[in-house]
Amino acid sequence: MKVYRGTLVHATKENPMEILRNGVIGVDTSGKILFVKDDDSIENLAVEIGFNPSVHNLTNSQFIIPGFIDTHIHAPQYPNTGTKMDLPLLEWLLAYTFPLEAKYSDLDFARDVYKKVVQKTLSCGTTTASYFATTHKGASMALCDAAESCGQRAHIGKCNIDQNLPEQYCEETDASLRDTEEFINEVLSRKNPLITPAITPRWAGCCTPELMCGLGKLAQKYDLPIQSHMCESPAEVKFVTELFPQYDCFTDVYDKCGIFTNKTVMAHCVYLTEFDVALMKERGVGVSHCPNSNLSLRSGMMDARARLDRGLKVGLGTDVSGGCHPSMLDAIRLAIHTSNAISIQRPPDYRPISYQDAFRMATLGGAEVLALDDTIGNFEEGKDFDALLIDMESPSSRVDTFDFHSIEDLVQQFLFMGDDRNIQEIYVCGQKVAEHGK
Amino acid sequence: MKVYRGTLVHATKENPMEILRNGVIGVDTSGKILFVKDDDSIENLAVEIGFNPSVHNLTNSQFIIPGFIDTHIHAPQYPNTGTKMDLPLLEWLLAYTFPLEAKYSDLDFARDVYKKVVQKTLSCGTTTASYFATTHKGASMALCDAAESCGQRAHIGKCNIDQNLPEQYCEETDASLRDTEEFINEVLSRKNPLITPAITPRWAGCCTPELMCGLGKLAQKYDLPIQSHMCESPAEVKFVTELFPQYDCFTDVYDKCGIFTNKTVMAHCVYLTEFDVALMKERGVGVSHCPNSNLSLRSGMMDARARLDRGLKVGLGTDVSGGCHPSMLDAIRLAIHTSNAISIQRPPDYRPISYQDAFRMATLGGAEVLALDDTIGNFEEGKDFDALLIDMESPSSRVDTFDFHSIEDLVQQFLFMGDDRNIQEIYVCGQKVAEHGK
Ligand SMILES: [Zn+2]
Ligand SMILES: [Zn+2]
Repeated sequence: MKVYRGTLVHATKENPMEILRNGVIGVDTSGKILFVKDDDSIENLAVEIGFNPSVHNLTNSQFIIPGFIDTHIHAPQYPNTGTKMDLPLLEWLLAYTFPLEAKYSDLDFARDVYKKVVQKTLSCGTTTASYFATTHKGASMALCDAAESCGQRAHIGKCNIDQNLPEQYCEETDASLRDTEEFINEVLSRKNPLITPAITPRWAGCCTPELMCGLGKLAQKYDLPIQSHMCESPAEVKFVTELFPQYDCFTDVYDKCGIFTNKTVMAHCVYLTEFDVALMKERGVGVSHCPNSNLSLRSGMMDARARLDRGLKVGLGTDVSGGCHPSMLDAIRLAIHTSNAISIQRPPDYRPISYQDAFRMATLGGAEVLALDDTIGNFEEGKDFDALLIDMESPSSRVDTFDFHSIEDLVQQFLFMGDDRNIQEIYVCGQKVAEHGK
Repeated sequence: MKVYRGTLVHATKENPMEILRNGVIGVDTSGKILFVKDDDSIENLAVEIGFNPSVHNLTNSQFIIPGFIDTHIHAPQYPNTGTKMDLPLLEWLLAYTFPLEAKYSDLDFARDVYKKVVQKTLSCGTTTASYFATTHKGASMALCDAAESCGQRAHIGKCNIDQNLPEQYCEETDASLRDTEEFINEVLSRKNPLITPAITPRWAGCCTPELMCGLGKLAQKYDLPIQSHMCESPAEVKFVTELFPQYDCFTDVYDKCGIFTNKTVMAHCVYLTEFDVALMKERGVGVSHCPNSNLSLRSGMMDARARLDRGLKVGLGTDVSGGCHPSMLDAIRLAIHTSNAISIQRPPDYRPISYQDAFRMATLGGAEVLALDDTIGNFEEGKDFDALLIDMESPSSRVDTFDFHSIEDLVQQFLFMGDDRNIQEIYVCGQKVAEHGK
């Protein structure tokens, strides 16, 4: 058993940010959290558990937070991150994104990129990622390999596309479903509890109802999470609405095809009607809010406050490479900036999200939308210990702290100015999977 | 003479980003740029100048850009950066900012903070900063000392405040002017061409017309730059308008008091009327656009495209600590995000600023608003060599590059994902003043 003693910062169901100043957290050999106490009495603890545990005492500049959960990231688009953002969504996909994704028929290329993207996101504190791969089954397995070998927790989706794109990007419907089921079985056969196959229709606009219905059945058969894109830009909503005149609206397409479950996460959800929100809430569909992507591609600004107020599950996503930064700290910052930007145009009683709300979305909220909140997202007994040891005075830190800074100040400094140099140690299921500078 | 040979990236009057792929730049012993050529023929060069210069050859992952110019930063607020952003502007000033600034009556405290802020901004690539200090003359000199000892180019302003704030923050009008003139003379007596005193009425709302007129005369007498705040939030515009019923509007106050010159930079300028824009253009007043601050304090979103289209000079500012990040890379990113956010709500023909435009504002645009464009801002013969050697594959870089990345890709990666670890060497007036990791 390992015991960490010091400041713990996490979200609970009731509180977007709870700070336990004299926290003690015990982790068993299987990586599960045995106990969490807001109490530094190690003596009592020793009596309770019957032996003297070895204790990792944190310094005053250190605190432990749950690992970040990136609920939407396209691993194959990683090489384009931060470049090529001069076109709106639909043109951007055709000009830059699909040509890059086509390269993943080459397994060596896939292995090289996927190792880099997993190492990069882990070092930025992403302990769990919900990845889109490409349509290629082999490359999608290579992404599983990369996550597995680095110890990152991941949902990994082989994409499905069978219409409305140039021929070289489309699959045959039957082959797409067959490849997907083979991919699922191959991943499940590894019996790695950290790696889960995710059903991944790319987007209603490039999937036939037959394909989506088949994918919905696979999700049900294997009890798997589902991820896709929805209501991202006005042009995209218009395209889907016109493509499916037999359905009531965009959300109705997904719902009728069996894509809307309580394990479904939909990226973006910028443009939702009251009907959409009610349907998502009824089905338990979560939102992956990707503020960098929405601003970079000029898709829109998602009103996170409105989604939270309506009781939807909301997590954050980097949406690399529509988003131009792979770090969840960037997603946290831009979620706050976006909410502030929205607030500027609203009546004075509009309440933008707080930094605590953004922190919750990056941790427990992410766990909720990925239907992993029984396992991760915060520090509760019985959950896995996925955590980051933050140090605002780490040897390589570039943040200046001052004597008069409170723990609240240090947490805010990390969220607004910190970077990977403040993420000293990274744990997934109790295992230290990365350490800064090592 | 030093010669650098490789890719040079800078803005010109006509082009927000010019890339010289085979550039050669010569810098003389006084730090001035002797020549700039888009040509790698060193043999011809040797013939031309009559000897074989020692040449610093850049690698393919390296390029040189002009140093960043932060046109608006409050050095004394540095300890609050990234914290305490839960109140709007006027409340925020009274609750957090003025109490911190009051501490600078303590010279030891001032010296400690000012050394840190100069080192920090330099390491982030800010070769020139236009600093607000506090009302304290002694601490303002300590800021000059810090910039001087680190080799940063700086405009430094002792602030002036003589009304509408709690007594402990206000000066007597006469004493304020006398202290300011003493400060000016003390700075000028050092004869350091990199350090310039700046006339710094804190803001019309806390300066009497007598004080501002006196400051305008000092600016004229010593031919000095002027900096202040203007049209930042609706509440702030309302306050000034009601305070000065004898003037036509906010800009008229500054203009009639002699504060509007072609060496004046006004921070924010979010809420400008057509009258304001025309007056600023006529007087040559520049805009310091501080997008992080405007979003963090929810002041508004400044339409940089509109200002540029009207021919105003526009630079970028971090506005630490209203802005929650001290790096100009953050200012560049948020200038783009802000312009994109504005574009989302405009007709489809609205053209947000490009990354090239933001780069120009962070370099040549900044030089223009500080009336330093004869000396710095880009690579032209006769200007001082203020420059950053960027390396996207530096030993500590956290950005993954790929073989197929073009130089345009590398530049964008730096602007969107890079950090101080990619800023390998930092030059002010030809002198290497900092080096990453050293
Ligand atoms: Zn996406
Ligand atoms: Zn300011």
